Amino acid sequence: MHSTMQDVPLLISRILAHGSTIHGRSTVTTWTGEPEPHRRTFAEIGERAAQLAHALRELGVDEGQPAGTLMWNNAEHVEAYLAIPSMGAVLHTLNLRLPPEQLAYIVNHAADRIILVNGSLLPLLVPLLPHLPRVEHVIVAGPGDRSALDGVAPAVHDYEELIAGRPTRYDWPELDERAPAAMCYTSGTTGDPKGVVYSHRSIYLHSMQVNMTESMGLTDRDTSLVVVPQFHVNAWGLPHSTFMAGVHMLMPDRFLQPAPLAEMIERERPTHAAAVPTIWQGLLAEVTANPRDLTSLDRVTIGGSACPPSLMEAYDKLGVRLCHAWGMTETSPLGTMANPPAGLTAEEEWPYRLTQGRFPAGVEARLTGPGGDIMPWDGESAGELEVRGPWIAAAYYGGPDAEPLRPEDKFSPDGWLKTGDVGTISPDGFLTLTDRAKDVIKSGGEWISSVELENALMAHPDVAEAAVVAVPDEKWGERPLATVVLKEGATTDYAELRAFLGESIAKWQLPERWTIVPTVPKTSVGKFDKKVIRRQYAEGALDITEL
Amino acid sequence: MHSTMQDVPLLISRILAHGSTIHGRSTVTTWTGEPEPHRRTFAEIGERAAQLAHALRELGVDEGQPAGTLMWNNAEHVEAYLAIPSMGAVLHTLNLRLPPEQLAYIVNHAADRIILVNGSLLPLLVPLLPHLPRVEHVIVAGPGDRSALDGVAPAVHDYEELIAGRPTRYDWPELDERAPAAMCYTSGTTGDPKGVVYSHRSIYLHSMQVNMTESMGLTDRDTSLVVVPQFHVNAWGLPHSTFMAGVHMLMPDRFLQPAPLAEMIERERPTHAAAVPTIWQGLLAEVTANPRDLTSLDRVTIGGSACPPSLMEAYDKLGVRLCHAWGMTETSPLGTMANPPAGLTAEEEWPYRLTQGRFPAGVEARLTGPGGDIMPWDGESAGELEVRGPWIAAAYYGGPDAEPLRPEDKFSPDGWLKTGDVGTISPDGFLTLTDRAKDVIKSGGEWISSVELENALMAHPDVAEAAVVAVPDEKWGERPLATVVLKEGATTDYAELRAFLGESIAKWQLPERWTIVPTVPKTSVGKFDKKVIRRQYAEGALDITEL
Repeated sequence: MHSTMQDVPLLISRILAHGSTIHGRSTVTTWTGEPEPHRRTFAEIGERAAQLAHALRELGVDEGQPAGTLMWNNAEHVEAYLAIPSMGAVLHTLNLRLPPEQLAYIVNHAADRIILVNGSLLPLLVPLLPHLPRVEHVIVAGPGDRSALDGVAPAVHDYEELIAGRPTRYDWPELDERAPAAMCYTSGTTGDPKGVVYSHRSIYLHSMQVNMTESMGLTDRDTSLVVVPQFHVNAWGLPHSTFMAGVHMLMPDRFLQPAPLAEMIERERPTHAAAVPTIWQGLLAEVTANPRDLTSLDRVTIGGSACPPSLMEAYDKLGVRLCHAWGMTETSPLGTMANPPAGLTAEEEWPYRLTQGRFPAGVEARLTGPGGDIMPWDGESAGELEVRGPWIAAAYYGGPDAEPLRPEDKFSPDGWLKTGDVGTISPDGFLTLTDRAKDVIKSGGEWISSVELENALMAHPDVAEAAVVAVPDEKWGERPLATVVLKEGATTDYAELRAFLGESIAKWQLPERWTIVPTVPKTSVGKFDKKVIRRQYAEGALDITEL
Repeated sequence: MHSTMQDVPLLISRILAHGSTIHGRSTVTTWTGEPEPHRRTFAEIGERAAQLAHALRELGVDEGQPAGTLMWNNAEHVEAYLAIPSMGAVLHTLNLRLPPEQLAYIVNHAADRIILVNGSLLPLLVPLLPHLPRVEHVIVAGPGDRSALDGVAPAVHDYEELIAGRPTRYDWPELDERAPAAMCYTSGTTGDPKGVVYSHRSIYLHSMQVNMTESMGLTDRDTSLVVVPQFHVNAWGLPHSTFMAGVHMLMPDRFLQPAPLAEMIERERPTHAAAVPTIWQGLLAEVTANPRDLTSLDRVTIGGSACPPSLMEAYDKLGVRLCHAWGMTETSPLGTMANPPAGLTAEEEWPYRLTQGRFPAGVEARLTGPGGDIMPWDGESAGELEVRGPWIAAAYYGGPDAEPLRPEDKFSPDGWLKTGDVGTISPDGFLTLTDRAKDVIKSGGEWISSVELENALMAHPDVAEAAVVAVPDEKWGERPLATVVLKEGATTDYAELRAFLGESIAKWQLPERWTIVPTVPKTSVGKFDKKVIRRQYAEGALDITEL
C-alpha cells in the first residue's frame, strides 16, 4: 500500500507567503534611536523580500550560492532571512563579535560573493575587505557613513536604491526541501570555526515546533523582543517562527545596551523576549537604578548559558518569568525548554525551572555513560547528552569542494550529535546539565562533575575561586585536582576544605590532590582554562598537596 | 552546497515515544456509563500500544498491511491509533454509521485481515462477517455480549487477554516517512466510497500544525472532549495531536447523547471540545431543559457543516466560544480555522467568526473561477476552492493491486485537490464558502450561488422550503430555477417572491423560472437532492412559470 498524499516540500518561501498574506498586518518594529522607531508590516516585508530577490538574482546570486549578512536585528535583516533562502540561495549570517581573522576565514570558507551589511558596521567590514578576495558586491542597509567604502574593490550598492522599483512578487522556485537554506559557523574555542548548513526542511520544522504550545507558543497577540542576534543561530529561529505565526517582532538593531532595551520594553510593551543571561543581568541593574515598567513581558526565553536562580527570582518579583532553554548552533537551536508540567504550584515548579528543560516532540535524546552504555532517564545517572532529530546537525560544512566533516568527538557512529554536555534526564524528560564532557572526571568507570565540586568549594567563605580538573591516576584512570584561590586573609587549610566538601559531596568523589594558586587561568571569554591547568600539572608546575 | 542536517523521518512512533515519556502523566479518560469513568495515563497507553503491536505481529500483521477498527472513541482505540502505524501497518478506521453494504465494500476493498471491534458494536459487525471473506481475526475490546461471535469464521480474541503479559516495549521500525500510516474512506453520495491513505509524514505534520498557536493550540493544561468520532477523518487529528502535546483526552465512547455529554462536561471539566453542529444543537436543548455547568469549556472546534450564527450566539451567552473549522477527509482534515486576527473587539470579530476561517501555514489555497482563471483574494470574487499541502490528498486508493485513482473532477492537472466547494477569500486569507461547485449556476461566465438564493427565499414568511438548481439556458448557458414549498395558507405569488429576492440579490442573478412544489426531494441524509430536481425539469415533470 502507498500513501495517496501530496508530496509538497517544506520551504521557507511558504513561511514568507503565509506570513505576508494571512498575517500581513503583523509588524516588524526596528529601534532607531530616534524619537520614533521604524515599523513595517509583514505584507510590506513580503513585497520587499521579492524585490531583494530580484536584485540579488540580477547580481548573479544563483541557487545553492551563499550570500553573507553582517547585520544587526532589523527589518532589512528579516527581509534577507526570507528572500535569500526562498530564491534558492543560502543565507550566511556573519557573527560580528568574532575576531576579524575568524570572520575573514568564515567568509572565505563559505565562498560568499555578496555581503549585505548595515551602514553602522562598515568600520568592521571595510578593513576586512582586502582579505576577502571572492566578495564581488557589498550592499549597505541603514544609516552609517559610506565614505569608507570609497575605492574598495567590490561593487557597492545601497540597499534601498538596489531594490527600489523592482517587482513586488517573485516566482519562488519549487526547491527540494533538503536544499540548503542558511548557514551559521560555530565559534568553537579550539580550531577553525565550523559551519552548520540548515535546510529548508530543518528550518520549517523547527519553526513549527517553536510555534507549538509545548515550546514558545507565541501568537499574533504577542510581540517578541528579539535581543538574541540574528547572526547567532538564526536568532534562535525567531524570525522564521514569528513570521510563520504572525507574531510581531521588536528588533533592537544596534541598541543593545540596558538603557535603550529598558526604554523599548516600556514603550513598545513586548509580551516575550529572548536573550542570554548577561542581557537580563544588565537590564536588572538598569531598572533597579532607573525604574521602568517591564510588566508587559510575561514570558522570557533565556539561553546561551545557565541562568542563575537569583536572577530568575529577581525577575519573578518584577512579574517577568524567565524560562530556560538549551540548544547550540548544531541544534538550530531548540533542544529543550523548561516549561514545567501542568498543575503544579509555584513551589513545585521551581526545581523544573532550574533544569535546562524538556525535549520537544522533534528531538530525541539519550545519555551515553562512562562505559559507552545508554543511561536511564532516572534523574540520577549521568552521561553525555546525544540528540537526534530533523533540525539537528549530522556533519559540518567542508567547503565548496570538500566532503562534509564528521569529527568522531561530535557525531556518534549511528549519526547522533554528541553535544559535549554531561547531565541527567528525569523520567519525565527534564534535562539537567552538570558539566562539559571534556571536563568531567572519569574515575573508575564513574563520572565526577567538575562543576559540582567547584560550586561546592566556592560556597566556602574563604574561597574566592576554585577550578577542578581531571588528572591521570594509576588506579582510577582519572581523579579530580582541586585548584583553589583563597580570599585575602583566609585561614583555612586543605583538610578543612576537604571536610567542608564532604558535607555535600559523596566521599569517593572528594579530591586527593590540592593546590592553592594566586589566580585561575582563564580563556579570552573569561571561562576557566582547564587545558592550561592540566598542562601545568603535567609539567609539574603546580605545588600539589595530597590528602 | 548541501545541507548538513540529519535526515530523520517524521514517524508516528515518535509521537508515541514523546507523548508516553515527556507527557507520560497526561491521561485518556473514557466514559463508561458507570459511576466512575476509566482513566489511563499516556505512559500506560505507550506500554499497552507496544503490547498490542507484539500481539498483532504474532497474528501476522506485517508492514504495509491494513488493520481495521470498528470502535468508538476510547483508550483502546487510541492505543490502536498509535500502535498500528508505529509498527508499520496501516490503521483503517471503519465508519460505523455507513450502510452495511458500504462497510462491507470498504473492508473488502482495503483487504483488511484483522478487525478490532468494540463489544458494543458486535451486533453491527457479526451480520457483516459472512460478507468479509478476507477477515481472519476479530479482536474484541470493551464490554458487550460476545456470544454472537460463536461459530463465526474468523478467529476471535479478547483485546485484554491478547495483549496481557506481552513486552511493554517494542522496537519500532525506522520507516520511510512517506509510508502509509492510516486510511479513511469518504462516504461520497455518488459511487463507491473512496479511500484516502495518510502517510506518517502527513499525520506528523498535521499534528504539529494542530498544536501550533494559529490552529487549536492546546497544551498539557487542557482537556479535550473528543466527540468527533475516531472513525471520522482521524477524529480531526486530535488523538495524534493531543498525544504529541500532552493534552488530556476525554473520550465519550458510545455515550454521544446530549445528557451524558452534558454530564461529562460538568464532571470532568474539559477546556476544549470538538464536534459537529448537530451535537451542539442537541447539547444546547439539553442544558436549557436541565441546566449544567459548561463553563470549563473555553474553546470549541465546530466543523463538518456550517454552524448557524444563532447557535454561536447562544453558546457565547453560556461563555463557550464556538470556532468554525473547515476540512474534509481529503485534507486530514485541517483546512481552515476561524480564529479572528488579534486586537479586534467582539463586534469586529463577529464577521470573521462567521467565515470558515483562515488557512494554516501548511495549506496553500486558490480559487478557480468560472473560466478556469485563478481569482483574487478580494473577499468578492468566487471560485472553486483548490488546496495544496503536505497533508492534502493527491489521489484515492485504488486497491491492493491497482493504481491510485485521480478523477479529473477531484484533482487538477497540476496536482491540487479540487474541494468541490465554491467561495471567496478575503485579502487576509479568510474563506467564506457559498455553494457546492456542482450546485453553483454558471450563467454567462459568472457564478450564481444556489445557496444564497435559497437562504434569501427561505427568509420570506410564506416560504417553508426553497431549492434553487441550475437548468440549461440557450443564451446564458445556465440559469437558476427556483423550486418553492409554500407554508400552509400562504397567499404570495411568483412576482412577489421575485420582488422580495430583488431586495437582497443582484438583478442579473434573479431566477426567471419558478415552480411551486409540495415538497423538495431529499437525499438519505436529509439534504436537498438537486439531481432529482434537475431530472424532473429535464423530463418536463415540473409545472414551470417564467417571469
